[in-house]
Amino acid sequence: MKQTLIRNGTVLDIAADGTTATPIPQQDVLIKGNRIDAIQATGAVDARHFDRVIEANGQLIMPGLINTHAHVPMVLFRGLVEDMPIDRWFNEGIWPLENNLEPEDVYWGTLLGMIEMLESGVTTVADHYFHMHHSVEAIEKIGGRALLGWAIFGSLGQQAVNDTADWVEEINGSGTSRIRAWMAPHAPYTCDDDFLRATAKKANQIGVGLHIHASETKAQTEASLSARGITPIQVLEETGIFDQPTLLAHCCGVNERDIEIIAKYQKHEGGIAHAPKTYLKLGEDIAPVTAFREAGIAVGLATDGAASNNTMDLWEPLRLMSMLQKDRLGAEAMPIPQALHVATRSAAQVVGLADDLGAVEVGRLADLVLVDMSGIHHTPLHQIPASLVYNTRPTDVTTVLVDGDVVVENGRVTAIDRDEVVSQAKARMERLSRNRPDQRIQTYNP
Amino acid sequence: MKQTLIRNGTVLDIAADGTTATPIPQQDVLIKGNRIDAIQATGAVDARHFDRVIEANGQLIMPGLINTHAHVPMVLFRGLVEDMPIDRWFNEGIWPLENNLEPEDVYWGTLLGMIEMLESGVTTVADHYFHMHHSVEAIEKIGGRALLGWAIFGSLGQQAVNDTADWVEEINGSGTSRIRAWMAPHAPYTCDDDFLRATAKKANQIGVGLHIHASETKAQTEASLSARGITPIQVLEETGIFDQPTLLAHCCGVNERDIEIIAKYQKHEGGIAHAPKTYLKLGEDIAPVTAFREAGIAVGLATDGAASNNTMDLWEPLRLMSMLQKDRLGAEAMPIPQALHVATRSAAQVVGLADDLGAVEVGRLADLVLVDMSGIHHTPLHQIPASLVYNTRPTDVTTVLVDGDVVVENGRVTAIDRDEVVSQAKARMERLSRNRPDQRIQTYNP
Repeated sequence: MKQTLIRNGTVLDIAADGTTATPIPQQDVLIKGNRIDAIQATGAVDARHFDRVIEANGQLIMPGLINTHAHVPMVLFRGLVEDMPIDRWFNEGIWPLENNLEPEDVYWGTLLGMIEMLESGVTTVADHYFHMHHSVEAIEKIGGRALLGWAIFGSLGQQAVNDTADWVEEINGSGTSRIRAWMAPHAPYTCDDDFLRATAKKANQIGVGLHIHASETKAQTEASLSARGITPIQVLEETGIFDQPTLLAHCCGVNERDIEIIAKYQKHEGGIAHAPKTYLKLGEDIAPVTAFREAGIAVGLATDGAASNNTMDLWEPLRLMSMLQKDRLGAEAMPIPQALHVATRSAAQVVGLADDLGAVEVGRLADLVLVDMSGIHHTPLHQIPASLVYNTRPTDVTTVLVDGDVVVENGRVTAIDRDEVVSQAKARMERLSRNRPDQRIQTYNP
Repeated sequence: MKQTLIRNGTVLDIAADGTTATPIPQQDVLIKGNRIDAIQATGAVDARHFDRVIEANGQLIMPGLINTHAHVPMVLFRGLVEDMPIDRWFNEGIWPLENNLEPEDVYWGTLLGMIEMLESGVTTVADHYFHMHHSVEAIEKIGGRALLGWAIFGSLGQQAVNDTADWVEEINGSGTSRIRAWMAPHAPYTCDDDFLRATAKKANQIGVGLHIHASETKAQTEASLSARGITPIQVLEETGIFDQPTLLAHCCGVNERDIEIIAKYQKHEGGIAHAPKTYLKLGEDIAPVTAFREAGIAVGLATDGAASNNTMDLWEPLRLMSMLQKDRLGAEAMPIPQALHVATRSAAQVVGLADDLGAVEVGRLADLVLVDMSGIHHTPLHQIPASLVYNTRPTDVTTVLVDGDVVVENGRVTAIDRDEVVSQAKARMERLSRNRPDQRIQTYNP
């Protein structure tokens, strides 16, 4: 088994209960195969015993960040639809644009988004999109970790449930341990109850979880209540979605009873994805992250798609989450250790890898990020955790490992030709930006 | 006169009324002395006629950003006081820490903060702090532009008014055109009415404006109303502060009548400084920027001190401002051109340079920033203004000019030894982080 040594870093120790975040200086991290084998004071091992030695030189060693909900290929649409409320954003903007999407766009868009994520320290993404065989190909090539969902709408019928379930089984059975798949019905407002039930049943049969948009806005909750007397979260409960591990995207529109329901079904896998930048930009409600955590629900950070979020790094959502909880609840809400807990351990649970990711600990997968905190914007570095949350730039990330493999070195992905990806993205711009609102893939009318 | 050519850039044209932001590609910007002499299609001039040629290679050429309210040397305290409400933040955190401040700290702290600002495209800062002769020295050395205020509390009495007025006159009469000074009483809650009146009178005598904290929180407004029946803004009106150009920091706690008052006194110089990151972090109200603008009040972006804001770049406040207006008012609030207008033209008015800064226009001062928008996080670049607001990183800034002089090249300040500044900051850490709450420079009790 390949052995890797990360020498002389400051290990960030985030307590399992989220109450503390402690930097431990002058540590060596020893990796055997794809897992952390030991963490110890630097200097005790002979570097010659390792296949690879990474000199941390005092940089921070932290767990890879986890993007718990994205539509990665949508980087190809970024900046095209701005300053619009959610209904117009969907109906006049994104859903007409997505009508231009061709399968191969997903390959290049995924590579483009993965470059941005990996180079800023995001090692795992829970992606929810179309033509996902191309996503698999791209993520394998660049060396990331992913939990993928092939998005389906109710209008596609049972065949889509069966087809995507076959694909999920194929992925999970392929031995590609970095890439797993769950079922991915789009949302309660685009999937009728029978379709949700069929998807839940299928997920149960094949033993996987579900990744679904849920209660994105208060208006969705109100529309559901007014149309049928129950909330979108209650719809998910009634249709059996919650009987499997569930990754719920957004949940900005939940009421107190919804929170109780979600908490009741919280499992060792699954939770809520929180994408604060997107929902701020849309002027919608902000998910009650603190209430979720108090109820025992796992929450992770997310970017959503770059068509709404513009960027794919998680440093901005990390501090947005913290600051918005303070905005809603006061300055003592979401203290720094909690924020880091959301970004790491809690997010690992959301994507179903609570025991494998989210901490620099012996036995966990070696998905690790080295952060250079010597920049002017961190100086003087009185408090590492504070600076990590409120000062870090994506460009502070220098080295990224996934499964013990170095996938980013000197701030650049190692496995692919970046210039080719940029060229491919540019070549697609004109076609992808054609907007014919009468030709859209769905209509937003929750 | 020195002549400089910036060749083949995309000039960002922000309309004077803030309704549009238009990138104009393939432009040359010709600079004579410290002002923009011409802007024209690239290729028409002979580069040999210039003392210096800067190849923009398609980068964006935009006006230098303006930080309308800061306490620059407070970078030395960053990260030390977190997750606290404003009263504890002052009384248990910052004001005890500032008791450690020695005059020379201001020199090194200013250099440190100016590096971060200049390298991220901030060319002008309105600073409000102590021992400002050291600030002048630092800003002259590094080559920035500033409007400085030597902060005074009412407890210091008339002598402080006289002394700082003498200093203001000395600065404004020194011929150092990049550095100007205004009077800087701290706030209505730390300066009694007589002191404010004396300061206003002195400002009037010497013909300068005033830079003051005002109505920072709703609690300050309520305390003032309950103690004396008028708001902090009304106090400023009654004491004659508004008879001079006034730079008001924060104004998060204003009521509708306050907005009318501020609008009534809006002059060609002055306005409101908006520091969204600080006030989000403190869990306080967010300034009603859109209402200010609708009332005809100039608003600029600000960082406040890094003890609350952590960082000194303006890209984060730019998008925070936009997103928070959407959060409060809906997705159509603060559209992209307006946000850019706040950051540039409007901010120029706030710091009293409405005709000289804030636009890439013939006749204006050549305070210019080149932004490289070729990064992965901008790709594909469908809409430059959108990407500028929502995607730009501080590290995208490559070249910065102040008064036509290149002060940042390849992303690094040119005039000083960065390593020495970092060493000096580190050497001060231990002394500056001693916290004895019984020894504080003031008590927060508005």
